[in-house]
Amino acid sequence: MQNITVALDAMGGDFGPRVTVPAAVQALSHFPELKVVLLGDQTAITTQLSILGCKPDTRLSIEHCDRVISNSEKPSLALRNSNGTSMGSAIDAVAQGKADACVSGGNTGALMALSRFRLKLLPGIERPALISALPTISGNKTWMLDLGANVSSDADSLFQFAVMGSALAEQYLQRPPRVAILNIGAEEIKGNDLVKRCAEMLSSTQSVNFVGYIEGNQLLHDAADVVVCDGFVGNVCLKACEGTAQLFIDKLKSSMISSSIKGWIARKLFSGLFNELKTLNPDQYNGASLLGLRGIVIKSHGSADVEAVTNAIGEALHEVKRQVPSRISDRLEAVLLERHY
Amino acid sequence: MQNITVALDAMGGDFGPRVTVPAAVQALSHFPELKVVLLGDQTAITTQLSILGCKPDTRLSIEHCDRVISNSEKPSLALRNSNGTSMGSAIDAVAQGKADACVSGGNTGALMALSRFRLKLLPGIERPALISALPTISGNKTWMLDLGANVSSDADSLFQFAVMGSALAEQYLQRPPRVAILNIGAEEIKGNDLVKRCAEMLSSTQSVNFVGYIEGNQLLHDAADVVVCDGFVGNVCLKACEGTAQLFIDKLKSSMISSSIKGWIARKLFSGLFNELKTLNPDQYNGASLLGLRGIVIKSHGSADVEAVTNAIGEALHEVKRQVPSRISDRLEAVLLERHY
Repeated sequence: MQNITVALDAMGGDFGPRVTVPAAVQALSHFPELKVVLLGDQTAITTQLSILGCKPDTRLSIEHCDRVISNSEKPSLALRNSNGTSMGSAIDAVAQGKADACVSGGNTGALMALSRFRLKLLPGIERPALISALPTISGNKTWMLDLGANVSSDADSLFQFAVMGSALAEQYLQRPPRVAILNIGAEEIKGNDLVKRCAEMLSSTQSVNFVGYIEGNQLLHDAADVVVCDGFVGNVCLKACEGTAQLFIDKLKSSMISSSIKGWIARKLFSGLFNELKTLNPDQYNGASLLGLRGIVIKSHGSADVEAVTNAIGEALHEVKRQVPSRISDRLEAVLLERHY
Repeated sequence: MQNITVALDAMGGDFGPRVTVPAAVQALSHFPELKVVLLGDQTAITTQLSILGCKPDTRLSIEHCDRVISNSEKPSLALRNSNGTSMGSAIDAVAQGKADACVSGGNTGALMALSRFRLKLLPGIERPALISALPTISGNKTWMLDLGANVSSDADSLFQFAVMGSALAEQYLQRPPRVAILNIGAEEIKGNDLVKRCAEMLSSTQSVNFVGYIEGNQLLHDAADVVVCDGFVGNVCLKACEGTAQLFIDKLKSSMISSSIKGWIARKLFSGLFNELKTLNPDQYNGASLLGLRGIVIKSHGSADVEAVTNAIGEALHEVKRQVPSRISDRLEAVLLERHY
């Protein structure tokens, strides 16, 4: 089995090494092919390791960085001051071939700016996009992009998102994914110029299995495998789903943890249902990928816990195994060829 | 008590008179001050009335229209061919002062185009907006606009939406509503040009209690009383909330209707919680208002049932009592004065 090295920004996320270090240790036990490089404050990392009774070895190394990019830092500033930061060094490890992928729960804007600058875009891509898998009612996944890598997009970018999302989803599904555009109606006449122009482009390519428009209420209902939208829409929409799901889960939880006999019965009988409902929260999957780069970059939620950061590392591993950037390149080349001949 | 007349497009919605007629009869029994004019096919309406053992009287009249605007008709075509249609006649009843408000569950695009053309916009308003109240976790309401009256908007329009939404919400809350802009982050540096420019405008007016940005996951969490966004974003976001809520309700429901003993216990334990959760579905409130017109127009869901259409008629009644268009005019005038002096 070939080793896969993931560079983990140990300082990223709301809890830093207290969460990232246990997650790295857990991921190493889950994935025998994994190696992790922890980037961040050596003392803080070592402290967390020793709490867990661990120390660096052939599979777990530490690269000391004495600076951290704060969450409030503007991407433009972060770009200028990234040398020696845990996030910058994690991306550099990928750029220099020392790691196969990197994972960070830090400042999203900075992560995107740095990734784009250090790793460069794939040929034919004008803008990277953030993609994540949403759970659906039937237990499948729907990939949605862009989730906020860009605050505005043109039809060309949206088309490229469709090609990239399709290439990624195909690696998981092993069949041509159904690609839809998120819109305010399912009829052809509906929508703004952006979605209409992108629909035209997708209708005239053989490289994407375009199935038309879907509305917001179909997002978690298996209506498509890949849903394309601009980053502003995708971000608010995904968070709206998460907020609604959280609200339902909180209500149900509070009825189950009540100390009454009713709460006890509810716990005994319906913990299965509760766990099933929890899996319908789009927030459950941690690890959004930044697509369109010459390298693999996974964005972990800032508020992610140990389990969630472990998932993000797992996602990085999967994408390395599936050679996602190469698959996207292949697909883009096919689209270009189709246009030329 | 002053009578209030509502013109109801009896043919609008997926079920036509089978739903609108019983809703009209129910609304008349709920609201003693209400009079309803049913616009549509006289035979179909009369048939439904006789099923209910009712006939036209001083509070319930029928105005025969032999044409209906279909759901697939383009707004531009609907505008040209609206004479004698149930929707066109309902709007005309308001324009001619024969009714105080109208309600339709028909083609949204056509309803907006016709309303704008027949009723005209309020001075200072460039575009109407669709607004609806969302339920929040604490049992309050958050008004959200635009929900799709426009597929794209500029910052001036968004600013006008904020003024209109604030004027409407204040009639219900009896205090200056907290107005927020929906964005991809809460920090000032986040977002696209549209929301940034609108935030600047709102920050510099005394007429709106602007509280900043909110993210999608805060929509149902009482973070603001009025949430402003462009129509594309509002539409997909609201539907995403509805879709997520529906998914949770369906799962819970299916555990409750199982015939096993577990289903029986679930019904006993969770029926209260279930009803509470249902009230968290944004879809429960029927009756979105089209704001910015010189008249009151309520859009009912196409799939609305009798209860929901009754709610939409109730919403029309409330807006007439609260003189919503005048309130909006007053507020707009205050904004204009503020800018001039």
